[in-house]
Amino acid sequence: METTYAEIITIGDEILYGQITDTNSQWLGSELNKIGVKVIRKSAIADKPEDILSTFAEAETRADIIIVTGGLGPTKDDITKHTFCEYFGVEMTHRPEVMENIEALFKVRQRSLNKMNQTQALVPSNADVLMNKVGTAPGMWFEKGNKTFISMPGVPHEMKKMISEQAIPRLQKKYETPFILHKMVKTIGVAEAVLAETLEDWETNLPENIKLAFLPRLGQVRLRLTAMGNSLEEITQEVEQEVNKLPDLIGKYIYAYDDEEVEHTIGKLLMARNQTLATAESCTGGLIANKITDIAGCSAYFVGGIVAYGYEVKVSQLGVKQETLDEHGAVSEQVAMEMAENVRKKYGSSYGLATTGIAGPDGGTPEKPVGTVWIGYSDENFTFAKHYQLTPNRMMNVNFTYNLAMNLLRRQILGEGVNKEDV
Amino acid sequence: METTYAEIITIGDEILYGQITDTNSQWLGSELNKIGVKVIRKSAIADKPEDILSTFAEAETRADIIIVTGGLGPTKDDITKHTFCEYFGVEMTHRPEVMENIEALFKVRQRSLNKMNQTQALVPSNADVLMNKVGTAPGMWFEKGNKTFISMPGVPHEMKKMISEQAIPRLQKKYETPFILHKMVKTIGVAEAVLAETLEDWETNLPENIKLAFLPRLGQVRLRLTAMGNSLEEITQEVEQEVNKLPDLIGKYIYAYDDEEVEHTIGKLLMARNQTLATAESCTGGLIANKITDIAGCSAYFVGGIVAYGYEVKVSQLGVKQETLDEHGAVSEQVAMEMAENVRKKYGSSYGLATTGIAGPDGGTPEKPVGTVWIGYSDENFTFAKHYQLTPNRMMNVNFTYNLAMNLLRRQILGEGVNKEDV
Repeated sequence: METTYAEIITIGDEILYGQITDTNSQWLGSELNKIGVKVIRKSAIADKPEDILSTFAEAETRADIIIVTGGLGPTKDDITKHTFCEYFGVEMTHRPEVMENIEALFKVRQRSLNKMNQTQALVPSNADVLMNKVGTAPGMWFEKGNKTFISMPGVPHEMKKMISEQAIPRLQKKYETPFILHKMVKTIGVAEAVLAETLEDWETNLPENIKLAFLPRLGQVRLRLTAMGNSLEEITQEVEQEVNKLPDLIGKYIYAYDDEEVEHTIGKLLMARNQTLATAESCTGGLIANKITDIAGCSAYFVGGIVAYGYEVKVSQLGVKQETLDEHGAVSEQVAMEMAENVRKKYGSSYGLATTGIAGPDGGTPEKPVGTVWIGYSDENFTFAKHYQLTPNRMMNVNFTYNLAMNLLRRQILGEGVNKEDV
Repeated sequence: METTYAEIITIGDEILYGQITDTNSQWLGSELNKIGVKVIRKSAIADKPEDILSTFAEAETRADIIIVTGGLGPTKDDITKHTFCEYFGVEMTHRPEVMENIEALFKVRQRSLNKMNQTQALVPSNADVLMNKVGTAPGMWFEKGNKTFISMPGVPHEMKKMISEQAIPRLQKKYETPFILHKMVKTIGVAEAVLAETLEDWETNLPENIKLAFLPRLGQVRLRLTAMGNSLEEITQEVEQEVNKLPDLIGKYIYAYDDEEVEHTIGKLLMARNQTLATAESCTGGLIANKITDIAGCSAYFVGGIVAYGYEVKVSQLGVKQETLDEHGAVSEQVAMEMAENVRKKYGSSYGLATTGIAGPDGGTPEKPVGTVWIGYSDENFTFAKHYQLTPNRMMNVNFTYNLAMNLLRRQILGEGVNKEDV
């Protein structure tokens, strides 16, 4: 079986100028990978016909599948469609089925078409239209021998729907692909270098067809194993065999596998125990509540939370004692403990989790520099708080605190606790 | 003055496989742009020496500055440094100053060096080291005639610090660059096509050296004007002249310019009026509180908030009447109003802002389908709620609701209100 290669080309000055984040190509990479297509390059280029044409030509020499996103909107800065015409030496043709789709969309939205929308029904004559059910710009599928060009609008939810429902099934029919298997092992509360050293022997003894990568982010390190082979069963077994050795080596740091995030893990742990959580956040400003409520069905275990930003709110809404604040300050072990315990009692939850810290950039003192964080924990038997000294950077501190708090809660739910030497 | 061109190359399978988002290249694009360097291409390629070598060679033919990120960590999957040696035909040399830096970092962190960290002091012999003050992997600066290669670790905060403090000043010394000016006009509460049609005459009459782009995202559309010229004063004036025409055309939709986000706008409006905000969030689950508290200094105007996810918490913590819930349901005009009013009174703030909705994917009914959202507003004179029908997608609904709520609050603070026809 030959490997099928793909390239992803993103068109738009806004990507080059750094004015938007390119999340499309990330998602596309992940979806292609799932069907065994190997993405070998991603390029972001300008809205300039000559750059687009030369990149198309180069990509065609390297890849079987070329996926192009961006440049299909109704406004004047979008030129992808015209450039496809030039590349293939064809003209635009009017597609009545696209016009019908646009009209239907506008009817539902109770808005009226303007003339810019009407040009969206013009499509290069050699393109198969991939109908856009949630937007006005049509997707396009071009064949050039055994090569395929797919053109997608840049709006993420439109692109994703068309790729999943139309392009992927058609690509699977056209190309035979080998099996690629990724396994992600997700750790929390341990540094990359410590993990790498602990796993050195295990890594050295991995089979040749399994590749390992360490992917760190604030407070977490993900291990990615990638295996390739002609039998899905075989590589699945091989990877499983290696992954099964990990709990003995680094078990207490592993919180999940693959797509599961730590907020999902917490949700599953709470659900399984029929327990609930309430949060009292100061320095994380609602991030914990927000990540937990991103998960559909979280109302089964998340009762709610308080974002106690102001000094007064800690007293009036959370019942932190004024004398505790006066004596120890808002960023202190005592206040973190009162916050955790009081929110648990007020909301009637099994657990209370609290954060208080100096996120920065201002507000630090010699005794409590920026990056000083206390995380409070409370259950019906036990309340405590743990101190962390983080970074001078506000956004890093907030996200770091999130992971530390989730790990502390995870270890407590599991009855394991967090040791002094853990991150 | 000749234009200076740059390319950004990101090395790492994790980008191609879509397992991490490439935020580095976004930031780099924006920083280079600020000093008048034009980014013409961004490429993400695999951790494979032959791909890296050929991409270096291609980039060198097109660009003056080639910035490479990734592949400098201590673990085995990182090969960038060796590939630079091959590309330039040089060997590694041990750099004592790098080793000292690594030792100092470990001392501060009270951790001990392992042997993987020690290989980080090896650097290609032709490289100038860009010292990494916050991490162990050194940055590198290579000169090849008038071309410059810069190699950076992939860890965002390490890369950013080295680029800002060391690479940018050195690039500005080496290259003479024309002036590029970007002006971002940020709108909220209006659809892209409506905006484009309203601005059609204005756009047609823009001077030739000013380019316009529409950048939509859920509930917001940003207009980006880009001007290039040899006199900064001249292009600044030209852009200003055009931007000054916009308030007459689309004034009520413009909330800010350039880097200001709508949460900053709200903060500024509240500060100027010496007013405060409290939030009661159900379907946005803390997102409003979280975005507002991302801003340093927000404690001056944000007193706090409640994430009232469970049914009971709406009653016990927010004082929503049980009979209101029973009669109208949690997602209703009445509950949104009670939430907004009660949180304002409880927290003693000038404004109360509340969200309640069916974010999805489950929980919809024929009368209240997924995407039904009520946003509640309260000040000391006036409490009301506004209904929106959004999408079937949970994440879209949450982010859309965020923008709608912020715009509703913005218009109310300004004493303008939100009309029925506004988005």
